[in-house]
Amino acid sequence: MQLDQIYQSVKEDLARVESQIKAVTEVDFRGLAELLRHILLGGKAIRPALTFLSARFYNYDLDRLLPMATSVELLHTATLVHDDAIDNSSVRRGRPTVNSLWGEDRAVLLGDYLFAKAGEFAALTGNLRVVRLFAQTLQIISSGELKQTFDAFNLEQSRDRYFERIAGKTAALFSMSTESGAILSQAPEASIQALKGYGTNLGIAFQIVDDVLDFTSTEAELGKPVGSDLAQGTLTLPAMLLLERYPDDNPVKELFNNRDMAEAARQVKVKRAIDMVAKSSIVEECYRVASDYCDQARQKLELLPASPVRKTLVEITDFVVNRRS
Amino acid sequence: MQLDQIYQSVKEDLARVESQIKAVTEVDFRGLAELLRHILLGGKAIRPALTFLSARFYNYDLDRLLPMATSVELLHTATLVHDDAIDNSSVRRGRPTVNSLWGEDRAVLLGDYLFAKAGEFAALTGNLRVVRLFAQTLQIISSGELKQTFDAFNLEQSRDRYFERIAGKTAALFSMSTESGAILSQAPEASIQALKGYGTNLGIAFQIVDDVLDFTSTEAELGKPVGSDLAQGTLTLPAMLLLERYPDDNPVKELFNNRDMAEAARQVKVKRAIDMVAKSSIVEECYRVASDYCDQARQKLELLPASPVRKTLVEITDFVVNRRS
Repeated sequence: MQLDQIYQSVKEDLARVESQIKAVTEVDFRGLAELLRHILLGGKAIRPALTFLSARFYNYDLDRLLPMATSVELLHTATLVHDDAIDNSSVRRGRPTVNSLWGEDRAVLLGDYLFAKAGEFAALTGNLRVVRLFAQTLQIISSGELKQTFDAFNLEQSRDRYFERIAGKTAALFSMSTESGAILSQAPEASIQALKGYGTNLGIAFQIVDDVLDFTSTEAELGKPVGSDLAQGTLTLPAMLLLERYPDDNPVKELFNNRDMAEAARQVKVKRAIDMVAKSSIVEECYRVASDYCDQARQKLELLPASPVRKTLVEITDFVVNRRS
Repeated sequence: MQLDQIYQSVKEDLARVESQIKAVTEVDFRGLAELLRHILLGGKAIRPALTFLSARFYNYDLDRLLPMATSVELLHTATLVHDDAIDNSSVRRGRPTVNSLWGEDRAVLLGDYLFAKAGEFAALTGNLRVVRLFAQTLQIISSGELKQTFDAFNLEQSRDRYFERIAGKTAALFSMSTESGAILSQAPEASIQALKGYGTNLGIAFQIVDDVLDFTSTEAELGKPVGSDLAQGTLTLPAMLLLERYPDDNPVKELFNNRDMAEAARQVKVKRAIDMVAKSSIVEECYRVASDYCDQARQKLELLPASPVRKTLVEITDFVVNRRS
């Protein structure tokens, strides 16, 4: 299953989102226009696709869905800009980050601008419930990221804490995407909750796979360096499993206990962690956990009317656990 | 005229804002709670007072005004947190900044959280027009701050550019405060525009005085070091006038042309700029410009019914140009 096929039924509406986003870049202030053009190109558009698809079961009202899908994509982009600034990341989607080109300060202000723009689009739906959902989601995302800063380089973390963190930093935006589509289609409350639950579980599975790819992928496929979670002191599921299996001689432990390690030595440790994960059954186990979340996501869909769009949402769960970038 | 007297008529409602803000700090996540408690204490509350006062002419509906006044204060605080992070400021309101205590990264995320919280309160008004106003205001503020980064250390700036910048970074929030109060009180459109115009002009006057105080005040009064605008390469009205009057031997020029100057030498130049401003009629001229904006603010009020609250709004213009911190 390719994304193209998944998107088939919402292809035209995703093109409309792209036009809306292009219009966002057209501002008089040239410095800002340049930053916006740099950051608003590309992206997989999976979140706006989820908003459109989640609205297909009931009253599909494009005038309300289009601003919401645009809002979801802009909010996602805003969080990436701030994440990269905070992590001092230099590459994203195969291109230099805003902070690496224009400095952290401008990245912070650009992110603020995009949050506001995303909020304005949410308000354009004319629906206060989705505006509140938008504001609450941004609170969850930012406090999730804040938790990550408190947990950084901490080797003693429960698996619950990991799931709590990724629920905040990734799944909240997925569930906002599906829930808002459901709300705007005037779905019954039970269906709204089902689609919200689908989004949450799908988002957790998506993030687990993301965390695995940080070990198993290549920089060319990822569009950013591999091993960056370890470098930033973020303990993800593969790293947790590696710590459990090799409690004594463990490169993750060495990395987290020696934060001032020279760059060359650090890279050797990261490489070793990647090799150890590759040689173990950790990757398999992580995919199993991700698949369990996808199962739960699919179960939530059972409440909804059987239809081609329900089939598409099921296919997205397959895509999420099979993707390589 | 003291702030206490100005606030008399909205004192109880400002105390309610304080309670709402205290409730914001009560979150389970202890790290976040600590950051929120640190930043959400203090503050002059001039912006929420403006929201309440602007609503007094028509239908004063506290259920809608209270969340808006809270939103205005939270949005103001969020922008301060990001500003301090960007400027690497270490002191604000006489206390260490969030970035100086917990690092720039957490300051960015805390600001994001506060933006979202402020947005949620705006949505609680149940009024989509003020939600859109909120989102647009944050766009104006962040692009105003972004303009400031592009203009930093640039000696060739027109006075228009200065007014454009302060309209964005300060006056937008003042006019949102007054406009939102007017909207929520169901004022006629002409009155909404009058109160919005009052807020804009008052905000510009407020910022001009802020820029003067950066030269003429003391660290104890300001709650932050004097001369910080010059240190950050921000060309304000007093510095512009100093450049016009002393085009040859000028410490501002030396500071902006030698960004890598040693700290001790820099402090000597800043001190000299402060002394030169103090000895000239520049301060007087700046206050004259600020007073002109206050005149314009007062003119806007003429359209509104003569009443005690209109008198209070006039008194605020006097307070703004007479304040010392």
